Amino acid sequence: MEERTEIASLGEFGLIDHLTRNNETKNASTILSVGDDGAVIDHFGRQTVVSTDLLLEGIHFDLSYTPLKHLGYKSVVVNLSDIYAMNAVPTQILLSIGISNKFSVEALDEFYEGVYTACKQYDVDLVGGDTTTSQRGFIISVTAIGEVAPDKYVTRSGAKENDLICVSGDLGAAFLGLTLLEREKMIFESTGAQPDLENQAYIVGRLLKPEARKDVVEYFAAQNVLPTSMMDISDGLSSELLHICKQSNVGCVLYEDKIPFSEDMKEFAYKLELDPTACALSGGEDYELLFTVSQADYEKINQNNGFSIIGYITAPSEGQHIITRGGSRHQLVAQGWNHLKK
Amino acid sequence: MEERTEIASLGEFGLIDHLTRNNETKNASTILSVGDDGAVIDHFGRQTVVSTDLLLEGIHFDLSYTPLKHLGYKSVVVNLSDIYAMNAVPTQILLSIGISNKFSVEALDEFYEGVYTACKQYDVDLVGGDTTTSQRGFIISVTAIGEVAPDKYVTRSGAKENDLICVSGDLGAAFLGLTLLEREKMIFESTGAQPDLENQAYIVGRLLKPEARKDVVEYFAAQNVLPTSMMDISDGLSSELLHICKQSNVGCVLYEDKIPFSEDMKEFAYKLELDPTACALSGGEDYELLFTVSQADYEKINQNNGFSIIGYITAPSEGQHIITRGGSRHQLVAQGWNHLKK
Repeated sequence: MEERTEIASLGEFGLIDHLTRNNETKNASTILSVGDDGAVIDHFGRQTVVSTDLLLEGIHFDLSYTPLKHLGYKSVVVNLSDIYAMNAVPTQILLSIGISNKFSVEALDEFYEGVYTACKQYDVDLVGGDTTTSQRGFIISVTAIGEVAPDKYVTRSGAKENDLICVSGDLGAAFLGLTLLEREKMIFESTGAQPDLENQAYIVGRLLKPEARKDVVEYFAAQNVLPTSMMDISDGLSSELLHICKQSNVGCVLYEDKIPFSEDMKEFAYKLELDPTACALSGGEDYELLFTVSQADYEKINQNNGFSIIGYITAPSEGQHIITRGGSRHQLVAQGWNHLKK
Repeated sequence: MEERTEIASLGEFGLIDHLTRNNETKNASTILSVGDDGAVIDHFGRQTVVSTDLLLEGIHFDLSYTPLKHLGYKSVVVNLSDIYAMNAVPTQILLSIGISNKFSVEALDEFYEGVYTACKQYDVDLVGGDTTTSQRGFIISVTAIGEVAPDKYVTRSGAKENDLICVSGDLGAAFLGLTLLEREKMIFESTGAQPDLENQAYIVGRLLKPEARKDVVEYFAAQNVLPTSMMDISDGLSSELLHICKQSNVGCVLYEDKIPFSEDMKEFAYKLELDPTACALSGGEDYELLFTVSQADYEKINQNNGFSIIGYITAPSEGQHIITRGGSRHQLVAQGWNHLKK
């Protein structure tokens, strides 16, 4: 039988001690970590980048098909992704959780195992947080802190006419993973049939255990490339590209046939009679990086197989468009994640 | 009739634009604020202090007697209090909220009015956050960031034998405020009678609109006092003093007759047949600062009417005790807030 230790048996402070007992700090900038009113950080003349996300059960994740360890990992990763999207390197996180009494200490340990695995993978220190009771549902709030050399951060607002629009990795798979898991959940609930994930490890993994593109920011540093704008793709390519266009006050042309897909993703999309392009444009949670670079950096981007050049920036008067495989030109619209889910 | 604008009518990004439209930054260290994946901060050779709190409806606040504007103010202040408790000066906050559709845009505006009022009062910039839907209940997560001159931060672990134990302001009033509001809520729910707050503006205000002790940290800087340990009183004096003793590995003697009360608080406690000392020891949310100083700083502390010297630090082997008005000696125990509420 699995062990179940009630959280109440440890008390609030006992629980915090328990969850942070193996927490070791690795960054020289982490001067004081968990256990006080605040943490102390010294970035030694670098600039500090901060970002925060709130993840709620029933809205952002479904515990019926999300292993707690993966949830812990993902909660950290999606925040680190925001720091990389600023061209910065994450160094610390703060993690707050609200938990109902349906959780045991063992369940929380699983969640924290994922949290610490992500911290180790990305060399960040967990330096603080808050632990509280919730009346219902699991609540996760993560704040990530990073550092960047003075004025080397990259915003959404620096894209210039003629810049190349680029993206890392491949898109749309996380959305298909969600579609598959939601389908299997529905079947399970109505028939009791065991989930059949059809060996779709790649697309399911993209949803449940995403990675943040640390390597992309490292590549920029090694190649001395400073993107003119950047953001991570959490809501779908259209929505993110339109954000960059709006905040940079520019137009864009996006080529449908340049959008990168994995083979697994394309095959499975066709099987579900979904358009891979629609999945990439409107599905979210791929956590790839969308960025623009000056044409002078073309070679440095083109030589990296992990990047795709998917379009270019235009004057604002030209608007935002996508050129389809068939050669027709359509206005780019952000239908977003919620639209696709319906 | 009051206006009611549905949040859905603005959309997520429209809502963020709406809530941050008047957001101005004041700190030179705030290089990039809301509107990107992250905010950028430069503390110019100072150390960065961070702290975070999660506030949940039904656990940390009750909307039936908490005006939204006060809730916004308090959500910020309780986090700033943690930064002051490190002897640091808060400079930025990140604010995430989860809201159900029972909230209108007007209701959120009220909440943000309180948030911005606190930001203005304490000279901090709101630089980021996350806005999401919740299935039930209002969820607030605040991360506060501050700065401190290198190695001038004060932890809970530096108290030394013979140090003086000091506290700012007066204690126990917030707990009485909560007791009064809970009583009136119960009467209203069972009889429909309008709340009678008995002109207890002070104690109700201490609960609903607490202040963080910015002035105390400023006084330390002006007088060149560096406390040996410090924390803010959110859970009650016993619990906090025991934290300092545990983390500093020391004992303490606390004098009951030195614990500061306001006249309003004492009178009302007697009226409710509550012991003021018990309210201070076990009631929380006063957000005063509890600190220890070396005896060499006695004059500098004693000359400030806003401080009370309530005891002294002993060797760890002597344990933690309170000397009552009657002169008897009792072990100090942390019964905490929850105990008192029962």
